[in-house]
Amino acid sequence: MPDQSPAPALGQKVAEALSRIAFNSDGLVPAIAQQHDTGEVLMMAWMNRDAVAETLTTGRVCYWSRSRGKLWRKGESSGQVQRLVAFHVDCDGDTILLKVDQTGVACHTGRRTCFFNKLEADGFTISEPVLVSEADLYGGRD
Amino acid sequence: MPDQSPAPALGQKVAEALSRIAFNSDGLVPAIAQQHDTGEVLMMAWMNRDAVAETLTTGRVCYWSRSRGKLWRKGESSGQVQRLVAFHVDCDGDTILLKVDQTGVACHTGRRTCFFNKLEADGFTISEPVLVSEADLYGGRD
Repeated sequence: MPDQSPAPALGQKVAEALSRIAFNSDGLVPAIAQQHDTGEVLMMAWMNRDAVAETLTTGRVCYWSRSRGKLWRKGESSGQVQRLVAFHVDCDGDTILLKVDQTGVACHTGRRTCFFNKLEADGFTISEPVLVSEADLYGGRD
Repeated sequence: MPDQSPAPALGQKVAEALSRIAFNSDGLVPAIAQQHDTGEVLMMAWMNRDAVAETLTTGRVCYWSRSRGKLWRKGESSGQVQRLVAFHVDCDGDTILLKVDQTGVACHTGRRTCFFNKLEADGFTISEPVLVSEADLYGGRD
Protein backbone atom coordinates (compact mmCIF):
# COMPACT_ATOMS: atom_id res chain seq x y z
CA MET A 1 0.00 0.00 0.00
CA PRO A 2 1.17 3.55 -0.59
CA ASP A 3 2.42 5.28 2.51
CA GLN A 4 -0.52 7.50 3.29
CA SER A 5 -2.95 7.74 6.14
CA PRO A 6 -6.59 7.01 5.49
CA ALA A 7 -8.94 9.98 5.39
CA PRO A 8 -10.26 10.98 8.82
CA ALA A 9 -13.72 9.46 8.22
CA LEU A 10 -12.18 6.19 7.16
CA GLY A 11 -9.81 6.20 10.12
CA GLN A 12 -12.84 6.66 12.36
CA LYS A 13 -14.60 3.76 10.67
CA VAL A 14 -11.59 1.50 11.22
CA ALA A 15 -11.38 2.59 14.87
CA GLU A 16 -15.10 1.85 15.34
CA ALA A 17 -14.70 -1.60 13.85
CA LEU A 18 -11.66 -2.45 15.93
CA SER A 19 -13.34 -1.26 19.12
CA ARG A 20 -16.34 -3.51 18.48
CA ILE A 21 -14.42 -6.72 17.73
CA ALA A 22 -13.49 -9.17 20.49
CA PHE A 23 -10.23 -10.60 19.16
CA ASN A 24 -9.26 -13.95 20.70
CA SER A 25 -6.12 -14.59 22.76
CA ASP A 26 -4.13 -14.92 19.52
CA GLY A 27 -5.38 -11.52 18.36
CA LEU A 28 -7.61 -13.10 15.71
CA VAL A 29 -11.30 -13.17 14.83
CA PRO A 30 -13.07 -15.55 12.42
CA ALA A 31 -14.52 -13.90 9.32
CA ILE A 32 -17.17 -15.51 7.13
CA ALA A 33 -17.25 -14.40 3.49
CA GLN A 34 -20.67 -14.47 1.81
CA GLN A 35 -21.41 -13.50 -1.77
CA HIS A 36 -23.55 -10.41 -1.31
CA ASP A 37 -26.21 -11.09 -3.95
CA THR A 38 -26.56 -14.87 -4.17
CA GLY A 39 -26.06 -15.56 -0.46
CA GLU A 40 -23.49 -18.31 -1.05
CA VAL A 41 -21.22 -18.85 1.92
CA LEU A 42 -17.82 -18.87 0.24
CA MET A 43 -15.25 -19.46 2.98
CA MET A 44 -14.21 -18.76 6.54
CA ALA A 45 -10.80 -17.39 7.44
CA TRP A 46 -9.20 -15.29 10.18
CA MET A 47 -8.39 -11.61 10.55
CA ASN A 48 -6.13 -9.70 12.90
CA ARG A 49 -6.33 -5.96 13.55
CA ASP A 50 -4.16 -5.12 10.55
CA ALA A 51 -6.27 -7.29 8.24
CA VAL A 52 -9.46 -5.57 9.39
CA ALA A 53 -7.90 -2.13 8.93
CA GLU A 54 -6.54 -2.96 5.48
CA THR A 55 -9.84 -4.47 4.33
CA LEU A 56 -11.82 -1.41 5.37
CA THR A 57 -9.23 0.97 3.96
CA THR A 58 -8.77 -0.64 0.56
CA GLY A 59 -12.19 -2.24 0.06
CA ARG A 60 -10.44 -5.48 -0.87
CA VAL A 61 -10.60 -8.32 1.61
CA CYS A 62 -7.39 -9.15 3.44
CA TYR A 63 -7.13 -12.02 5.96
CA TRP A 64 -4.41 -13.21 8.31
CA SER A 65 -2.85 -16.48 7.19
CA ARG A 66 -2.26 -18.58 10.30
CA SER A 67 -0.15 -21.11 8.38
CA ARG A 68 2.08 -18.50 6.76
CA GLY A 69 2.02 -16.04 9.67
CA LYS A 70 1.37 -13.01 7.50
CA LEU A 71 -1.33 -10.91 5.89
CA TRP A 72 -3.14 -12.76 3.14
CA ARG A 73 -4.45 -10.42 0.49
CA LYS A 74 -7.10 -12.68 -0.98
CA GLY A 75 -6.52 -13.09 -4.71
CA GLU A 76 -2.99 -11.68 -4.69
CA SER A 77 -1.63 -14.88 -6.27
CA SER A 78 -4.73 -16.18 -8.01
CA GLY A 79 -6.48 -13.00 -9.13
CA GLN A 80 -9.64 -14.21 -7.38
CA VAL A 81 -10.15 -11.10 -5.25
CA GLN A 82 -13.01 -10.26 -2.92
CA ARG A 83 -14.41 -6.74 -3.04
CA LEU A 84 -15.96 -5.72 0.26
CA VAL A 85 -19.64 -4.83 0.01
CA ALA A 86 -20.65 -4.80 3.69
CA PHE A 87 -19.00 -5.46 7.04
CA HIS A 88 -21.07 -6.96 9.88
CA VAL A 89 -20.10 -7.90 13.44
CA ASP A 90 -22.16 -10.35 15.48
CA CYS A 91 -23.94 -9.79 18.79
CA ASP A 92 -20.95 -10.54 20.99
CA GLY A 93 -18.30 -9.18 18.64
CA ASP A 94 -16.42 -12.42 18.17
CA THR A 95 -17.31 -13.19 14.53
CA ILE A 96 -17.32 -11.03 11.40
CA LEU A 97 -19.58 -11.47 8.40
CA LEU A 98 -18.15 -10.00 5.20
CA LYS A 99 -20.55 -9.52 2.33
CA VAL A 100 -18.34 -9.57 -0.71
CA ASP A 101 -18.29 -9.63 -4.46
CA GLN A 102 -16.09 -12.61 -5.29
CA THR A 103 -14.20 -12.56 -8.58
CA GLY A 104 -14.20 -16.11 -9.97
CA VAL A 105 -13.78 -18.75 -7.29
CA ALA A 106 -13.15 -18.51 -3.56
CA CYS A 107 -11.60 -21.95 -3.05
CA HIS A 108 -7.99 -22.89 -3.82
CA THR A 109 -9.37 -26.08 -5.39
CA GLY A 110 -10.99 -23.95 -8.12
CA ARG A 111 -14.50 -24.30 -6.76
CA ARG A 112 -16.78 -21.37 -6.14
CA THR A 113 -17.08 -22.11 -2.40
CA CYS A 114 -14.87 -23.99 0.04
CA PHE A 115 -17.89 -25.85 1.48
CA PHE A 116 -18.18 -28.41 -1.30
CA ASN A 117 -18.04 -31.54 0.89
CA LYS A 118 -21.67 -32.43 1.54
CA LEU A 119 -22.54 -35.26 3.90
CA GLU A 120 -25.12 -37.66 2.51
CA ALA A 121 -26.48 -40.91 3.95
CA ASP A 122 -23.61 -42.93 2.51
CA GLY A 123 -20.77 -40.47 3.07
CA PHE A 124 -19.44 -37.25 1.59
CA THR A 125 -20.18 -36.16 -1.95
CA ILE A 126 -18.74 -33.17 -3.78
CA SER A 127 -21.49 -30.64 -4.33
CA GLU A 128 -19.57 -28.05 -6.38
CA PRO A 129 -17.78 -28.40 -9.72
CA VAL A 130 -14.21 -27.28 -10.35
CA LEU A 131 -14.52 -24.07 -12.41
CA VAL A 132 -10.82 -23.22 -12.70
CA SER A 133 -7.90 -25.65 -12.53
CA GLU A 134 -5.37 -25.17 -9.75
CA ALA A 135 -2.69 -24.83 -12.44
CA ASP A 136 -4.60 -21.91 -13.96
CA LEU A 137 -5.16 -20.38 -10.52
CA TYR A 138 -1.58 -20.50 -9.34
CA GLY A 139 0.50 -21.18 -12.45
CA GLY A 140 2.88 -18.28 -12.77
CA ARG A 141 0.49 -15.47 -11.98
CA ASP A 142 3.03 -13.79 -9.75
CA MET B 1 -31.59 -38.49 24.63
CA PRO B 2 -32.97 -41.99 25.08
CA ASP B 3 -30.32 -44.60 25.69
CA GLN B 4 -30.16 -46.20 22.29
CA SER B 5 -27.46 -46.54 19.66
CA PRO B 6 -27.98 -44.94 16.28
CA ALA B 7 -28.80 -47.23 13.41
CA PRO B 8 -25.70 -48.62 11.65
CA ALA B 9 -26.05 -46.32 8.64
CA LEU B 10 -26.29 -43.30 10.88
CA GLY B 11 -23.30 -44.46 12.92
CA GLN B 12 -21.35 -44.70 9.69
CA LYS B 13 -22.41 -41.18 8.73
CA VAL B 14 -21.26 -39.82 12.08
CA ALA B 15 -17.94 -41.67 11.75
CA GLU B 16 -17.45 -40.24 8.23
CA ALA B 17 -18.11 -36.71 9.47
CA LEU B 18 -15.78 -37.02 12.44
CA SER B 19 -13.01 -38.45 10.28
CA ARG B 20 -13.25 -35.50 7.88
CA ILE B 21 -13.20 -32.72 10.48
CA ALA B 22 -9.92 -31.16 11.65
CA PHE B 23 -10.78 -30.26 15.24
CA ASN B 24 -8.50 -27.62 16.77
CA SER B 25 -6.23 -28.13 19.77
CA ASP B 26 -9.23 -27.58 22.07
CA GLY B 27 -11.17 -30.30 20.23
CA LEU B 28 -13.48 -27.74 18.61
CA VAL B 29 -14.46 -26.67 15.11
CA PRO B 30 -16.34 -23.51 14.09
CA ALA B 31 -19.79 -24.10 12.61
CA ILE B 32 -21.68 -21.52 10.55
CA ALA B 33 -25.47 -21.79 10.54
CA GLN B 34 -27.20 -20.61 7.38
CA GLN B 35 -30.95 -20.62 6.75
CA HIS B 36 -31.25 -23.20 3.98
CA ASP B 37 -33.76 -21.41 1.76
CA THR B 38 -33.17 -17.68 2.21
CA GLY B 39 -29.36 -17.91 2.53
CA GLU B 40 -29.26 -15.72 5.67
CA VAL B 41 -26.14 -16.34 7.75
CA LEU B 42 -27.65 -16.73 11.20
CA MET B 43 -24.75 -17.32 13.59
CA MET B 44 -21.40 -18.97 14.16
CA ALA B 45 -20.70 -21.22 17.11
CA TRP B 46 -18.44 -24.14 18.00
CA MET B 47 -18.87 -27.91 17.99
CA ASN B 48 -16.92 -30.72 19.58
CA ARG B 49 -17.13 -34.38 18.55
CA ASP B 50 -20.15 -35.04 20.75
CA ALA B 51 -22.00 -32.01 19.35
CA VAL B 52 -21.38 -33.18 15.77
CA ALA B 53 -22.54 -36.70 16.62
CA GLU B 54 -25.66 -35.50 18.41
CA THR B 55 -26.57 -33.07 15.62
CA LEU B 56 -26.32 -35.77 12.96
CA THR B 57 -28.13 -38.33 15.11
CA THR B 58 -31.06 -36.18 16.18
CA GLY B 59 -31.32 -33.79 13.22
CA ARG B 60 -31.45 -30.89 15.69
CA VAL B 61 -28.39 -28.68 15.91
CA CYS B 62 -26.30 -28.97 19.06
CA TYR B 63 -23.20 -26.84 19.70
CA TRP B 64 -20.55 -26.79 22.40
CA SER B 65 -20.83 -23.79 24.70
CA ARG B 66 -17.32 -22.60 25.45
CA SER B 67 -18.54 -20.26 28.21
CA ARG B 68 -20.63 -22.90 29.97
CA GLY B 69 -18.35 -25.84 29.13
CA LYS B 70 -21.16 -28.11 28.06
CA LEU B 71 -23.29 -29.17 25.12
CA TRP B 72 -25.64 -26.42 23.98
CA ARG B 73 -28.80 -27.81 22.44
CA LYS B 74 -29.82 -24.76 20.46
CA GLY B 75 -33.33 -23.71 21.43
CA GLU B 76 -33.49 -25.85 24.56
CA SER B 77 -34.28 -22.80 26.69
CA SER B 78 -35.79 -20.48 24.10
CA GLY B 79 -37.65 -22.88 21.82
CA GLN B 80 -35.80 -21.39 18.84
CA VAL B 81 -34.45 -24.69 17.51
CA GLN B 82 -32.46 -25.33 14.35
CA ARG B 83 -33.43 -28.35 12.27
CA LEU B 84 -30.49 -29.66 10.27
CA VAL B 85 -31.08 -29.64 6.51
CA ALA B 86 -27.54 -30.24 5.21
CA PHE B 87 -24.06 -30.67 6.67
CA HIS B 88 -21.04 -29.38 4.72
CA VAL B 89 -17.33 -29.44 5.56
CA ASP B 90 -14.88 -27.08 3.90
CA CYS B 91 -11.85 -27.91 1.75
CA ASP B 92 -9.43 -28.32 4.64
CA GLY B 93 -11.91 -29.71 7.12
CA ASP B 94 -11.57 -26.95 9.68
CA THR B 95 -14.98 -25.26 9.29
CA ILE B 96 -18.50 -26.66 9.10
CA LEU B 97 -21.42 -25.09 7.24
CA LEU B 98 -24.80 -26.14 8.60
CA LYS B 99 -27.79 -25.46 6.40
CA VAL B 100 -30.67 -25.27 8.83
CA ASP B 101 -34.30 -24.45 9.21
CA GLN B 102 -34.38 -21.92 12.06
CA THR B 103 -37.51 -21.70 14.16
CA GLY B 104 -38.08 -18.03 15.01
CA VAL B 105 -34.86 -16.17 15.76
CA ALA B 106 -31.26 -17.33 16.00
CA CYS B 107 -29.93 -14.51 18.19
CA HIS B 108 -30.34 -14.27 21.95
CA THR B 109 -31.22 -10.58 21.43
CA GLY B 110 -34.41 -11.67 19.63
CA ARG B 111 -33.14 -10.84 16.16
CA ARG B 112 -33.28 -13.27 13.28
CA THR B 113 -29.48 -13.28 12.82
CA CYS B 114 -26.60 -12.48 15.17
CA PHE B 115 -24.89 -10.33 12.50
CA PHE B 116 -27.04 -7.25 12.99
CA ASN B 117 -24.21 -4.77 13.59
CA LYS B 118 -23.51 -3.25 10.19
CA LEU B 119 -20.62 -0.86 9.72
CA GLU B 120 -21.53 2.30 7.82
CA ALA B 121 -19.46 5.39 7.07
CA ASP B 122 -20.30 6.99 10.41
CA GLY B 123 -20.21 3.89 12.61
CA PHE B 124 -22.32 0.84 13.35
CA THR B 125 -26.02 0.71 12.71
CA ILE B 126 -28.43 -2.08 13.66
CA SER B 127 -29.62 -3.76 10.49
CA GLU B 128 -32.14 -6.23 11.97
CA PRO B 129 -35.24 -5.60 14.08
CA VAL B 130 -35.97 -7.33 17.38
CA LEU B 131 -38.70 -9.88 16.59
CA VAL B 132 -39.04 -11.46 20.04
CA SER B 133 -38.22 -9.83 23.37
CA GLU B 134 -35.53 -11.43 25.51
CA ALA B 135 -38.13 -11.79 28.27
CA ASP B 136 -40.31 -13.83 25.93
CA LEU B 137 -37.31 -15.87 24.78
CA TYR B 138 -36.00 -16.81 28.19
CA GLY B 139 -38.79 -15.95 30.63
CA GLY B 140 -39.63 -19.17 32.40
CA ARG B 141 -39.64 -21.46 29.43
CA ASP B 142 -37.79 -24.13 31.32
